[in-house]
Amino acid sequence: MKLFQRLGLHTLFFNTKDKRLATSIKMITGRKPLNLSLYRLALTPAGLGEETHKGFRISNERLEFLGDAVLGTVIAEYLFKKFPYRDEGFLTETRSKLVNRETLNEVGIKIGLKKTLEQVIDSRQFIGNKSLYGDILEAFLGAVYLDRGYHFTKKLISQRILIHMDLEEMISTVSNYKSKIIEWSQKESKQIEYKVLQINGNQRYKEFVVELTVNGDSVAQGKGPTKKKAEQEASKNACETLHITI
Amino acid sequence: MKLFQRLGLHTLFFNTKDKRLATSIKMITGRKPLNLSLYRLALTPAGLGEETHKGFRISNERLEFLGDAVLGTVIAEYLFKKFPYRDEGFLTETRSKLVNRETLNEVGIKIGLKKTLEQVIDSRQFIGNKSLYGDILEAFLGAVYLDRGYHFTKKLISQRILIHMDLEEMISTVSNYKSKIIEWSQKESKQIEYKVLQINGNQRYKEFVVELTVNGDSVAQGKGPTKKKAEQEASKNACETLHITI
Repeated sequence: MKLFQRLGLHTLFFNTKDKRLATSIKMITGRKPLNLSLYRLALTPAGLGEETHKGFRISNERLEFLGDAVLGTVIAEYLFKKFPYRDEGFLTETRSKLVNRETLNEVGIKIGLKKTLEQVIDSRQFIGNKSLYGDILEAFLGAVYLDRGYHFTKKLISQRILIHMDLEEMISTVSNYKSKIIEWSQKESKQIEYKVLQINGNQRYKEFVVELTVNGDSVAQGKGPTKKKAEQEASKNACETLHITI
Repeated sequence: MKLFQRLGLHTLFFNTKDKRLATSIKMITGRKPLNLSLYRLALTPAGLGEETHKGFRISNERLEFLGDAVLGTVIAEYLFKKFPYRDEGFLTETRSKLVNRETLNEVGIKIGLKKTLEQVIDSRQFIGNKSLYGDILEAFLGAVYLDRGYHFTKKLISQRILIHMDLEEMISTVSNYKSKIIEWSQKESKQIEYKVLQINGNQRYKEFVVELTVNGDSVAQGKGPTKKKAEQEASKNACETLHITI
């Protein structure tokens, strides 16, 4: 069966609609799909799929779960290698900004999922939710993963998805809480100070406890294995306490 | 360089300590490491790594971020294929139970990371946090991924990690909110009822709004593309309102 598909013989049985869909998918991934039904499933938004006799509604949500994980891993590796000197907090935050619903939605439309979806369903009949194309993008990546494997999906994401994401802008908005606090204190003419309250642990393993005071009053504390991290955490907590928006 | 490693020639330059560590790693992964320094980094808990002149502390936290993503993807695919008729809510919840800190910690010790860690650091000197071996396990998987690729890591997780996780038990505790509410109502002798308040959408796309009443009083509502999902969500909300613990 696998050989049959690899030779492209399964496309002989495609009807006109299938052929058009397969061509659309090739425009996005660069390769004709081996298992078209996976992609058709990815293009079935929740609430639009048919219900089976047991009340189980077939939709792309399960594929979305899978695609979300694959996308997360590829972006994790990308950021890991691109920023060798940034800590895991930065990596986590940058990734969550990259894969937020709004960005994914835009990327989904940009790579052509809207047009592909229109081939499968009559979109006038369908009131999609706001993150429709973001959801479909993730489900689509899940389908690509099952159809073509991890390596292929990783290449697809690196070459065709990441270029639509404005990494530089994302990073500039990744919150540096300490600088936010300093900025705020200058604007509000407040005196802030970071004090190391405690250093726990032994010679090798240390934990710093830092307190942040505003005009002498303690507003927040933070802990961490370095002074810098403890200060960052104290700043984050202070942003919450003082309702400073990032 | 790659060929040099594949031929195992790099091991000629290993000192005794390196050789012992490489053997330990082979016991876990089944293959000698190509890049030993990745594994050494994975075995460097946060707070124990050396600080560079710029205040950047080298630790396994970045690798942990990567390994967490890879583990999440492999488990996502495993659950996706194992449970073809369960929805994404079930898959998400089951995965998060499988990769919780406590489980990972146990698995980390079971596959031998404690012994391997003892070769690298003097553990008596080190007060690790509770999730030490879970963190190391994730970082270790990140190292394996960078060293040997996705396919190898996936096989490792399927064959040597998942067998230590008691999937059946996890699943039985995955919360079914509706059954919780029914159980609660019987214990407290309350009358509960699910009512469909609204059905929105058109012929193809539907949204159900369900209300849950207890002794005639509305306690929660839920929405969803099927009646079943809406009831499940209403039950979940009711659990929160009524402080029923899952």
